Amino acid sequence: MSEGVGGPGRRRGRRPGPSDTREAILASARQHFTRQGYDAASMREIAQGAGVDPALVYHYFASKDRLFMAAMRLPDLLAALGEALGPPAGTAPLEELGARLAGTLVRLMSDPELPRTVAGLMRTVATNELGAAMVREFIGGVVLQRVGERLQGEDAPLRVNLVASQVFGLLVARLVVRLEPIASAPPEVVAAAVGPTLQRYLTGDIAGPERDAR
Amino acid sequence: MSEGVGGPGRRRGRRPGPSDTREAILASARQHFTRQGYDAASMREIAQGAGVDPALVYHYFASKDRLFMAAMRLPDLLAALGEALGPPAGTAPLEELGARLAGTLVRLMSDPELPRTVAGLMRTVATNELGAAMVREFIGGVVLQRVGERLQGEDAPLRVNLVASQVFGLLVARLVVRLEPIASAPPEVVAAAVGPTLQRYLTGDIAGPERDAR
Repeated sequence: MSEGVGGPGRRRGRRPGPSDTREAILASARQHFTRQGYDAASMREIAQGAGVDPALVYHYFASKDRLFMAAMRLPDLLAALGEALGPPAGTAPLEELGARLAGTLVRLMSDPELPRTVAGLMRTVATNELGAAMVREFIGGVVLQRVGERLQGEDAPLRVNLVASQVFGLLVARLVVRLEPIASAPPEVVAAAVGPTLQRYLTGDIAGPERDAR
Repeated sequence: MSEGVGGPGRRRGRRPGPSDTREAILASARQHFTRQGYDAASMREIAQGAGVDPALVYHYFASKDRLFMAAMRLPDLLAALGEALGPPAGTAPLEELGARLAGTLVRLMSDPELPRTVAGLMRTVATNELGAAMVREFIGGVVLQRVGERLQGEDAPLRVNLVASQVFGLLVARLVVRLEPIASAPPEVVAAAVGPTLQRYLTGDIAGPERDAR
């Protein structure tokens, strides 16, 4: 793909408005972050790819961190997670959270952009400490806070960690490594397999003798 | 770190033998693969980092694929997996496989080199199709063959995929992202939490109505 894909340059004859510019920056940022990882991607090159001045990138997104979050759609993932775990599902029975979360996950996984987002996240996390720290903050802060409202007990943080480990592993196996048959399995098959795992991590016995669970 | 770390150049006054050379190549390869991923790492630079001629790298490892497997210690991971799932554990009851695998995993995780290996694998898988294909082959071929001997039913491949998703997610959460508290949790706590998941994926009901499991 050439530079500036999705940018205002594509629409000649129409003056680019603020929302075109924002989208162009996001598209360029996504491209640079997923290809190069957080560290190597430069704000200057991202601006260049969008055909704008670097100052404009800072005007819209304030910092490389925020641009990264927006470009990688982390807020979207959070919103989807919130849909499964927070209000209005906040009133749903605790014992349905696993199934809800699994259902949301498999729905999310049909987004054709998600494989690139996950691959970009993998590169970022594996390449630099800041990437790992951002994911830590995201899960330890935002997610835990949201889910923690519903879980009780001192082990809530460990439970959220366990959920994150299975969710991330599933995203990678299905979308990035594309292991078969899990990559082409119908969403409901994946949800049925993984839902009980998430439910046990959220509310089941995670400390007892191992043969309690089947 | 400078180039040639671990290479024969460190041991002046002693003539480097074949095993020094091999180790130097592996150390340089590990460094290049984990930093740059499979594609970007060049055989020429790996040879240079080890202070040897590129022809010697091919002499020892035949191909970039084989060098990658050796440098990333994939055979070690396989051996450990075999220890948990294959003979002599091959005679162990099926219903103990989850606990055995979890126990082996947490033992493996104390290897101080493993975080770099996992991070390197993440980068490779996320960066190029060959990396993903190698992991697919590794899991779909070697692992499935080994574990498949013990599992019955058409869904054995899906079961192995599910196990791989949780194992990989756990390695990433604990070693690379270093989510807390799972990163510092005692091995037996992690094994008790994850063992039943692996057991259910291997031999439990993965298709039934989701609320069967707790």
